[in-house]
Amino acid sequence: MPRIFTPGNIDKEEKEIRKDYSDRHTPHVICDDQAKRGRKFRVKVRLGEQHPHPDDADHYIAYLQLWNRETLIAETRYQSGAFGNELSHPGVDFYIHPRISMNLSAMALCTKHGPWQSESIAVEVFD
Amino acid sequence: MPRIFTPGNIDKEEKEIRKDYSDRHTPHVICDDQAKRGRKFRVKVRLGEQHPHPDDADHYIAYLQLWNRETLIAETRYQSGAFGNELSHPGVDFYIHPRISMNLSAMALCTKHGPWQSESIAVEVFD
Amino acid sequence: MPRIFTPGNIDKEEKEIRKDYSDRHTPHVICDDQAKRGRKFRVKVRLGEQHPHPDDADHYIAYLQLWNRETLIAETRYQSGAFGNELSHPGVDFYIHPRISMNLSAMALCTKHGPWQSESIAVEVFD
Amino acid sequence: MPRIFTPGNIDKEEKEIRKDYSDRHTPHVICDDQAKRGRKFRVKVRLGEQHPHPDDADHYIAYLQLWNRETLIAETRYQSGAFGNELSHPGVDFYIHPRISMNLSAMALCTKHGPWQSESIAVEVFD
Repeated sequence: MPRIFTPGNIDKEEKEIRKDYSDRHTPHVICDDQAKRGRKFRVKVRLGEQHPHPDDADHYIAYLQLWNRETLIAETRYQSGAFGNELSHPGVDFYIHPRISMNLSAMALCTKHGPWQSESIAVEVFD
Repeated sequence: MPRIFTPGNIDKEEKEIRKDYSDRHTPHVICDDQAKRGRKFRVKVRLGEQHPHPDDADHYIAYLQLWNRETLIAETRYQSGAFGNELSHPGVDFYIHPRISMNLSAMALCTKHGPWQSESIAVEVFD
Repeated sequence: MPRIFTPGNIDKEEKEIRKDYSDRHTPHVICDDQAKRGRKFRVKVRLGEQHPHPDDADHYIAYLQLWNRETLIAETRYQSGAFGNELSHPGVDFYIHPRISMNLSAMALCTKHGPWQSESIAVEVFD
Repeated sequence: MPRIFTPGNIDKEEKEIRKDYSDRHTPHVICDDQAKRGRKFRVKVRLGEQHPHPDDADHYIAYLQLWNRETLIAETRYQSGAFGNELSHPGVDFYIHPRISMNLSAMALCTKHGPWQSESIAVEVFD
């Protein structure tokens, strides 16, 4: 079964040692914590904070997914080369129209190092 | 964060009560346990054993994925209606060419009830 | 075979009559016409200029694709509901790192009215 | 705009010269020409008849799609390596439940040589 890597399940010591490895693969959900019901709302999904990820034919980010709890909202797939075969922070801006309060998270799939999960972000939706 | 349902993480009592719910959503990997290196090898991924799943516009199986440990090998996506808007056991036959021994598992995404994971199947690859 | 609708292959008269239909489904690529080699470059793909598209369970935009000539660069998939089940202009911002001059186009898939293609946009890449 | 290659739009002379190129990339829909309404119906999509296709990190088949006219029914995506990095005829067996007579076609995307379309197959659905 695929193990899913999360910021939580890498222990602290290992985190320190493999900080670049972990940082490079961890997706982040970047958005406001409040949204107006039914209005366009931007949600950035982006990989890594400090350490960029390769974009090689045999090692690249195949997809970035945006979830609201157990519901997949949207997913962006890449072919290798989208990031110029260079180190980068793969990212995408989704625009969604929330109806109810959400608990957003992201998943990233590295073709070499498997699926990685973000922290989750609560977004309150008001009228 | 999306919880991933697996045959293991539903407790026994609940399993009995919600047997149909669990059976209907659990994907299965069906294949031989031995494969010849580099030869075409069929891997069936199929949902449910007894209880079929709906195929309604607001409740259907959006994808079936085939993984070898942390590597996504292939994924089949459906639009609702592929199964005639009727109860069925969504399934697909993948044909892969194994090079090394594998530990296969499947993921299914229900648009209403989230991601579900199969048991994993060891496949020994020999020359 | 799937017919692919393009701004060009709808004749002028019909275009006038079914202006809203055509406008609502036609994707647009919105980006600068020059890019610096290997630098992050934003490419918006957006549906429609005046007329918004539904987001109903049986009628929604299933994907937006970004192509450079015959190469698929990236693709965003949606579940229905991503746009709040309301009329909207589905859109996504891709960030790519161009290496060579490109000829970008977009494809959108409506679950009810099939695949639609944008005009293409030439992007000159310089050092 | 992506050109879509079809068996029809390659002229006869060129077809002769580049027969292997064309054969290797052309998807085929293989199924019965009659189906019982609402019953499970197998549809094979397979690439090439004589000439196999590479499965290299920079040159592989990224997806096989099954269409009924302008409706995408199902799509299988591959990571490179699914076919053992060897020459093969990528293929998948879909199982659908037809409700009305269909006109099936397939699309294949080669990461190096773009999108290719099959001939279409009429399937009569009866009670």
